[in-house]
Amino acid sequence: MSSSSCTRRAAGVAALAACALLVGTPHAATPAPPVAEKLPTTASVLAGAKDADWRDVDPARTLYMDFGDARVVIELAPGFAPRHAANIQALVRAGWFDGALITRSQDNYVAQWGRPDDIAAGDRGAASEHVPAEFDRALEGLDWTGLEDGDVYAPQVGWVDGFPAARDPATGRAWLAHCYGMVGAGRGMAADSSDGGQLYAVTGHAPRHLDRNITVVGRVLSGIEHLSSLPRGTGALGFYEDLGQRVPITRMVLAADLPESERVPLQVLRTDTRTFEQLIRARRHRHEEWFIDPVGRVELCNVPIPVREHEG
Amino acid sequence: MSSSSCTRRAAGVAALAACALLVGTPHAATPAPPVAEKLPTTASVLAGAKDADWRDVDPARTLYMDFGDARVVIELAPGFAPRHAANIQALVRAGWFDGALITRSQDNYVAQWGRPDDIAAGDRGAASEHVPAEFDRALEGLDWTGLEDGDVYAPQVGWVDGFPAARDPATGRAWLAHCYGMVGAGRGMAADSSDGGQLYAVTGHAPRHLDRNITVVGRVLSGIEHLSSLPRGTGALGFYEDLGQRVPITRMVLAADLPESERVPLQVLRTDTRTFEQLIRARRHRHEEWFIDPVGRVELCNVPIPVREHEG
Repeated sequence: MSSSSCTRRAAGVAALAACALLVGTPHAATPAPPVAEKLPTTASVLAGAKDADWRDVDPARTLYMDFGDARVVIELAPGFAPRHAANIQALVRAGWFDGALITRSQDNYVAQWGRPDDIAAGDRGAASEHVPAEFDRALEGLDWTGLEDGDVYAPQVGWVDGFPAARDPATGRAWLAHCYGMVGAGRGMAADSSDGGQLYAVTGHAPRHLDRNITVVGRVLSGIEHLSSLPRGTGALGFYEDLGQRVPITRMVLAADLPESERVPLQVLRTDTRTFEQLIRARRHRHEEWFIDPVGRVELCNVPIPVREHEG
Repeated sequence: MSSSSCTRRAAGVAALAACALLVGTPHAATPAPPVAEKLPTTASVLAGAKDADWRDVDPARTLYMDFGDARVVIELAPGFAPRHAANIQALVRAGWFDGALITRSQDNYVAQWGRPDDIAAGDRGAASEHVPAEFDRALEGLDWTGLEDGDVYAPQVGWVDGFPAARDPATGRAWLAHCYGMVGAGRGMAADSSDGGQLYAVTGHAPRHLDRNITVVGRVLSGIEHLSSLPRGTGALGFYEDLGQRVPITRMVLAADLPESERVPLQVLRTDTRTFEQLIRARRHRHEEWFIDPVGRVELCNVPIPVREHEG
């Protein structure tokens, strides 16, 4: 695989992770000769995607979280957590997260943010004090794209509207899967003790044992690297013992509340398309030149859901 | 789950990642009342481990890599990659990695280090110029502890001497699995183009598609958080385009070449023990109070292999 095939704009952050391990640095490497790519690779599938394979992200369900020089863009999943999504929208609009803190960075697990007890209580606006747990939902009515490669944790896995998910025909339930970059609502001991006022993002190996034990509210579309590269907290659970390490959130805002010129025009590859099916196939059988023995199988959380900036 | 159950010394870095998501910060939380833990948890299993359940790490196969204020401790796996392990030992002894650079940090994938072409060539000492690929080995003769929960990528998975591994009875082969913190030898296009002079560590969701496509040489026992929290490189494959971002490695040394007083006395929980079997069970059925609906299954790369500092 030539390094240039890993840098196409449409591939996005997630697809970059698909690229192979090279020994040399790109600037030192001899450019690879052009290869007639007859067998699909992540890069060739994305290069062949049509505009109709991409969907605009709805600004009403898109959050921008700014801290330092970083911006994290999160897409909410009201199809799975409607009450949490609505509450988060209300909290964001009330400014709850402005001046909130990233309080926790636990290695190979999560980063978490909210308003700890030692800072001023935030304005809750129209947000509810109590929100029911939304660990799963009925599987009926979901536009399901299945992955046939099996899963350790769930009877069936696949994607719904660009989110990794699982379902159980025996119980008739479906739920979002804790893959890298997924966002959830922190809770205490009670199942219904989350209200969306404290959030976490997965920054390590997928903690799938959390599935159906906490409400997943969406996923990070871009900027997850700013959360996953935070210094790790040295306290229990990765909380920052040194309170000076906590990272202030400058602002969290709904894209819909900004003028269009200030929005990040992201698009997500539709997961109900033939292009996405080809992408799954390309991830299963890695035809990039570097691979010696492609395994022929792929795990749910190892399929990137590509994101790009809309160029039109 | 009380936060205190996540902080026991023996639990180590890996076991911390097992702890649950709390809403409050620990110092703000009301201490949980003591719970009679009849059902095993990660913490209770480790608290009940005997000294004989832990093995000292052989200093002859233990590497310390120092950069900035960080120390990363790596255990080599000569049982799987004897030629690479020997070559890495020779390169380390010759000082090859002293003044080498961390050149790459790719989000949700790997950090990589070595001597790029634009710095002085290092001293190779007794290291070979050419080392065969060691992607897998015969499964005979391995002290295998199996995991019965299935796997997407391999017919069978489990542990050998404290390393996550996979095997295929049909081919008679076994290999190390690319779980978080595993260390491999970077290579170019040719299978046998790695010599151990360039290494990488997994810093994201397990890239198991790399299994049997590259030589895995060991795993990080402590300090992986210093690699996984490095800023991400903005070049192709996460290489640092801004060469000033590359991180100089002060020193890489074999523990055996240091006086005993300067060694880090790490111990690894033996994976061929009843205690480790109990740990697997505790990870499968999460009995910590926080969990509502433990899934009853666990994936290979979600079982921590505990490491502690020897207190004797």
